[in-house]
Parts: sequence; structure tokens; C-alpha cells
Amino acid sequence: MKETKPLILISNDDGITAKGIKHLVEFMAEIGEVIVVAPNKGQSGMGHAITIGQALRLDKSNVFGENILAYECSGTPADCVKLAKHYVLKDRTPDLVVSGINHGSNSSINVIYSGTMSAAIEGSVEGLNAIGFSVCDYGHQADFSHTKEVIQKIVRNTLANPLPKGITLNVNIPKKSEIPLKGIKICRQTKGRWAEEFDERIDPHNRPYFWLTGKFVNDDLQVNGEPNTDTDEWALKNNYVSIVPCSHDLTAYPLIAELKDLER
Amino acid sequence: MKETKPLILISNDDGITAKGIKHLVEFMAEIGEVIVVAPNKGQSGMGHAITIGQALRLDKSNVFGENILAYECSGTPADCVKLAKHYVLKDRTPDLVVSGINHGSNSSINVIYSGTMSAAIEGSVEGLNAIGFSVCDYGHQADFSHTKEVIQKIVRNTLANPLPKGITLNVNIPKKSEIPLKGIKICRQTKGRWAEEFDERIDPHNRPYFWLTGKFVNDDLQVNGEPNTDTDEWALKNNYVSIVPCSHDLTAYPLIAELKDLER
Repeated sequence: MKETKPLILISNDDGITAKGIKHLVEFMAEIGEVIVVAPNKGQSGMGHAITIGQALRLDKSNVFGENILAYECSGTPADCVKLAKHYVLKDRTPDLVVSGINHGSNSSINVIYSGTMSAAIEGSVEGLNAIGFSVCDYGHQADFSHTKEVIQKIVRNTLANPLPKGITLNVNIPKKSEIPLKGIKICRQTKGRWAEEFDERIDPHNRPYFWLTGKFVNDDLQVNGEPNTDTDEWALKNNYVSIVPCSHDLTAYPLIAELKDLER
Repeated sequence: MKETKPLILISNDDGITAKGIKHLVEFMAEIGEVIVVAPNKGQSGMGHAITIGQALRLDKSNVFGENILAYECSGTPADCVKLAKHYVLKDRTPDLVVSGINHGSNSSINVIYSGTMSAAIEGSVEGLNAIGFSVCDYGHQADFSHTKEVIQKIVRNTLANPLPKGITLNVNIPKKSEIPLKGIKICRQTKGRWAEEFDERIDPHNRPYFWLTGKFVNDDLQVNGEPNTDTDEWALKNNYVSIVPCSHDLTAYPLIAELKDLER
């Protein structure tokens, strides 16, 4: 009897030639049948952008060798998942959508700016099992060697126990170091923000321009003198892999009752 | 004694010359001191994109006349709010960030693709009171004449009773019709999605390209035969203005306990 392999759709936001997606394809090919639809260029910080005013291109790619069906797309990460689901896969439904491995953290507030997470969240909007993976190392040559075991564990678990509809896992993995990973922590999103500074410069035509720079501020370090050990930032700082279950239902339910006065 | 007017920061995603923001500036100028930082071109569907790999331009604009301080920015709606907060306003803190009025609905799942809402949500990330306004009319020449009273009511209420930190209001207003608006409904985000179809065409060089098209599917119409009257889609269909309080904390809290097995 032939065992059916799970169908795994892969995308990312660093582009189809990034090191992170290459590793993710290798890790997933050991578990299931892999199809890749990924941006043809870097799309970091694209949030949940979709392409409305322009047409999209989609071209076959052999960057992962002849055994992996792969496409590069001119659109955003969310576009890639839409095209994959409704055009490339047509009547086939993937058992899982995975996005990444992102070069850089998508913990805390970064989740809302992240193209990696938008690909995964788009999967959940389509009613699919979906996970975004990131490593806290921004380098082009980031080391992913410590990520295989934990990524495969999380993927196998999610294939065996599908997530509820509308839920996406945001998985962040500490940067490779001499200390081995301590394990997995299920966390909440840390309250935080970027304290932005704009680096103002003058171009050769004497016009100003601005580079966005900034420093992450953790507003969620402790309460009553005790550290908040349930946040993704705490987990990562303490060498745990953080998993935050995310919903694309943004409703702040407790506020519904509080705002009822406005109905009058 | 001189009364201090509230400081209101305005942005949008349809660009600084859109009809919707012109109306919003007029409505807000009757309530407070207005400063505008808005994209210099349409940015619909930009989700929560930010500009990382490119520099930003920021230029003074007189599209709202000499009495309104306004800037047009080359970046996304989220970039506009960041630049406004950290560069234009510097030490002044706006009492409210408003975004819109968007030409087109941002109800249900549209909230995650919406540039209008990303500007408002960026305000809430910065710890500010923030509201996104949209009218369910995609036309360039959409009619906004029925929106003034309800927008001013919501703004005055929010200035008097600031929202909790991290909460943004997603306000959608039905398209102008012969029937007057029935009032305001505080709602939850409707479960829905776009059933995408990709319109595949062939260019003059014989290469395929794709247009994203689709139809909205409401997965939240009824339960046990009774209509779900607590959703934003229901409110809008029934000629109410819908308000969904939104959080940028995506954590699906009930799932944290359920996933604890993964920690082993």
C-alpha cells in the first residue's frame, strides 16, 4: 500500500534565492511533497500587502533542483500564497503552508510588519494549516544548522494535530550560539515597538531624504518586579524557541461591550 | 483663557490628492488642529508594509490650502505615521490619529490588507488613540456627504474617552443611498475571505501574466439558522455604521494552553 505524503506549500519574504528558504525546502522534502511559490526578490517588511494595481508574473524556477516544483512570483508573499492556492495547486489542498526561514526575528510587534508571517497568515485565511519560521539572525549568511530538528518536530506535530481554523504559528528560533537550544516555549506576543529615528540626509540635488532606523523597545519586561516569562521576547532571550499562536481576527472582544455607548 | 485644540494627525492609503482625505481634513479641521502626512500616490492593499530597503522622501504640500500643515511622503501609510510621529511632530503628541476616508470597505478580512487601517494601527503601536474610516464605495468620486455627522461624533467621543492602549477602531460606513444611516453598531470582524480567481493573459511577447480578481465570501452569515447580527458585514448590509475595535496583539490566547504539549 502506498503511503500518501503530505503536501507542503512553501513561501517566504526574503526571495526564492535566500538561504533560509533553501534550508526549509530541504527540511520539508524529508517530510512531504513540496511545492514552492516565492517572491522573485526580497519583500521584507511588506506586511500583508497584496498587489491590486499591477499584473503579476509567475515563472518556473529550478533553484531547488529538478525534483522540487518551484515558481518565482513578482508579487508579495501574500500574493504568492494566493497564486499557489488558486492557480498552481488548483484542486489540490496543501496539508500545510510554511513560510521562511526568515533571516531575522519576527517576534513581538515585528509580526505585523513581516512578509514571512503574512504568507503564513494568508494560508490561515484560506483555511489552511500554516506556520511562519524565523531565525533571530539578519545576516545573508545566517546559520540555520541548529533549526532542522525543532522545525521538523513542529511541522510533524502540526500535520498530526492540525491547527484550529484561522490560527497561524509564529515560530522564532534564537540565533545559533555555543549554548544549545533549551526547548520550545508557547508564548504570547510581547508588547513592544520600534523607537524610530529617521536618519535625514541631503542628496546631490540638495533635496532631503530619510532612512528609517530604530531600536526595539520592550514594553513588557516585568510586572510587579517579576519578569514576564510568558512573552516571546523572554523565551528568545533565554535561548528557547518561541511559538506564538496568532489569529487574523483582530477584534478586541472585551472592548465591544465597553464601546456600546457609542451606539446611542 | 485660551482653549487648546486637540492635535489630530491624518493619513490615508489612497494618496494625498484623494477625495476621501480631503473630506476627512475638512471634518477634522472643525474639531482640532490638523496635520497631514499622507502617501504621494495610491497605496491600497499595502497591508502593514514599511519601507526598509529604500530612502523616503517627504515634501510639504498645499493641497489643503495654506491653513493646513501637510506633507506628502513617498512611503507606505505606516511609514507616513512613523515619519509624522518621530520627525514632523517631534515632541508634540497627537491626541488622535485618523486615517481615510478610504474609498472602499475595510470590513471583515479586508482589515489585514488595508493600508488605511495600517496607518491607524501604526498609531496604536505608537501608543496613540487611532481610528480608520472607510466608506463602502470604491469609486474615485465616491459620495462622502452622509459621513460627516457620524465621523465627527465618533472622533469627539474618542477624544473625550481615549481608547485603551493598543486598540484601534475600524469604522466602515455604508455607501450613500436614499435610506438614511440607521445608527452605529459595535461589531466583531466577520469571518470571511476572498475566493480568488486569477485572470491569466498573454502579453505581446507571448509571456503569461495574471490579474488578481475575486469575490468576497462571508463564512459568518448565520449559526443555527439565525443570522449573525454581531458582525460588521451584517451591520453594513443593514445600513448601520460598523465599528470593530481592533488589537495589534495577534496572540490567540486560548491556544496557548492547548499547544503546551509541544513544549515537551
